[in-house]
Amino acid sequence: MKKIINDPSHIVEEMLEGMVKSYSTLIRRVEDTRVVAKTAEHSQVGLVSGGGSGHEPAHAGFVGDGMLSAAVLGDVFTSPTPDQIEAAIKAVDHGQGVLLIVKNYTGDILNFEMAKDMAEMEDIAVEIVVVDDDIAVEDSTYTAGKRGVAGTVLVHKILGDAARNGATLTELKELGEAVVAATKTIGVALRAATVPEVGKPGFELKEDEIEFGVGIHGEPGYRREKLQASRQLAEEMVDKLVAAYDDKPTEIGVLVNGMGGTPLMEQFVFINDVLNLLADHGINVTFHKVGNYMTSIDMQGLSLTFIDLNNTAWLEALNTDVTTISW
Amino acid sequence: MKKIINDPSHIVEEMLEGMVKSYSTLIRRVEDTRVVAKTAEHSQVGLVSGGGSGHEPAHAGFVGDGMLSAAVLGDVFTSPTPDQIEAAIKAVDHGQGVLLIVKNYTGDILNFEMAKDMAEMEDIAVEIVVVDDDIAVEDSTYTAGKRGVAGTVLVHKILGDAARNGATLTELKELGEAVVAATKTIGVALRAATVPEVGKPGFELKEDEIEFGVGIHGEPGYRREKLQASRQLAEEMVDKLVAAYDDKPTEIGVLVNGMGGTPLMEQFVFINDVLNLLADHGINVTFHKVGNYMTSIDMQGLSLTFIDLNNTAWLEALNTDVTTISW
Repeated sequence: MKKIINDPSHIVEEMLEGMVKSYSTLIRRVEDTRVVAKTAEHSQVGLVSGGGSGHEPAHAGFVGDGMLSAAVLGDVFTSPTPDQIEAAIKAVDHGQGVLLIVKNYTGDILNFEMAKDMAEMEDIAVEIVVVDDDIAVEDSTYTAGKRGVAGTVLVHKILGDAARNGATLTELKELGEAVVAATKTIGVALRAATVPEVGKPGFELKEDEIEFGVGIHGEPGYRREKLQASRQLAEEMVDKLVAAYDDKPTEIGVLVNGMGGTPLMEQFVFINDVLNLLADHGINVTFHKVGNYMTSIDMQGLSLTFIDLNNTAWLEALNTDVTTISW
Repeated sequence: MKKIINDPSHIVEEMLEGMVKSYSTLIRRVEDTRVVAKTAEHSQVGLVSGGGSGHEPAHAGFVGDGMLSAAVLGDVFTSPTPDQIEAAIKAVDHGQGVLLIVKNYTGDILNFEMAKDMAEMEDIAVEIVVVDDDIAVEDSTYTAGKRGVAGTVLVHKILGDAARNGATLTELKELGEAVVAATKTIGVALRAATVPEVGKPGFELKEDEIEFGVGIHGEPGYRREKLQASRQLAEEMVDKLVAAYDDKPTEIGVLVNGMGGTPLMEQFVFINDVLNLLADHGINVTFHKVGNYMTSIDMQGLSLTFIDLNNTAWLEALNTDVTTISW
């Protein structure tokens, strides 16, 4: 394993320190926790997300005005504990309650729900929105139902904007569930991630082999195949995403998300193919985003997310300015 | 070679198309060229940069209000031709002249100078600022003198802000030269980049080996050694950068730049070590930036840039808002 780290068991701690020291005008560390909260305090419903580390810039990179109020960092690919999540809830509650945005993994669901119970016992109103945008497989390693992946970032953005504009906790939960229902993702891997404490790739792909539908922790996908050209990959992924909507959308947003080890050059080649295919489908693309947002450490690969944007308010929310490290 | 591409010989064309289609509110393609120009037109001195492709988001990702007026995209790791550079100059000249920001590589210098001559024959005032921030080696493959690397992005930002605020061509050239003199970079590689048309890594490092001082096209550095912990790498790189200033700076900006294949997690661990060391040196860090800005395709590694920020105007210029894809 070749990585620029010190002791693998301190990696989250040191990363967190580096992040907070570098962006101290935007984020602060809640004392004695692994919680990153925004420095600007606003009277609004608090928005908290988080999960295992290794998906940087998610989620701490999206903490700031107009997106998340706080992010909780677990160990690499491991859910944060309920007491840490509770600390985040307490740090961002201004009396209007706190919404938790949780990617659908069994460990995360369990711990975020337990933190919700703990906070409610202290009279803080808490709701949860579960993101399960990955259409690749039903039930997977670590997950009952569909997994939560890169589409989560779009949920952060739209809900973050609504919360800033004064939406109530109930309104945010309802909005979140609507956005999740409109958001679908599928991924492809060329090389697995190496978890620092493990020291070798999570799975092996042959030199000419790819895997469709892999999760962001290297969970199995739905098919292994020979490496294909970008436009063939795009065709399979676009077709699957379009077919996953009950009614074919007419206007969508597209997010191409690099997994950590795939250069921007390839991501732009890929989105070019995606956009050509969508033009053939007669689907209008009104929002585009390309880059590394929800990574899997150093995994080589990318994911493609569609969000149905028939709702113009969502499009506006995606385009407002935020003060975060990474949006 | 495992890459998400189509025909390697079309990679720049397709990447450029993907970029322009995705960010059409910010950038446009100058017809029949490989020039990306900002959509917003302002009466100011034009700022043009560019060079070989493979360094994304540089330079097209920095085109927009407050940074570059245009970027010229050469083939992968190959200078753009003079006619393409001239097209960029013409596209952004508003009668106040055009400044070219050029990384110090022999091919780029030759072609940008030729384009300057061509534009001057058409009565456009053109000046050049050469960036040579890489302190690792004097004279290298493709370069006489020191190489131009990640520090170029800071030059884009400070000059972009000054140009937006009405600085003249002469003032910008002078400012550019001062910023270049204050900016120093050193890199380390863990794995070489694979140029798509070549299909294999540009050089070989053993499984436990790193190379200090490698350039952004895989040019040789100054020493190969066993893989070290992040804080040892940081120590060598910080010491060399501090020693490269005639007078030890008291206030600096720090840019940690990922080379394309190094996850943000490692970059944040590394900057944490760098900031701890700088505190020991008694050097105050007033600007921080961490991420992939001047990559070498999928190279695993990173570079560290310092900019002497005794000048508060530069710090302000680094912090102003821009509308670009990637700053």
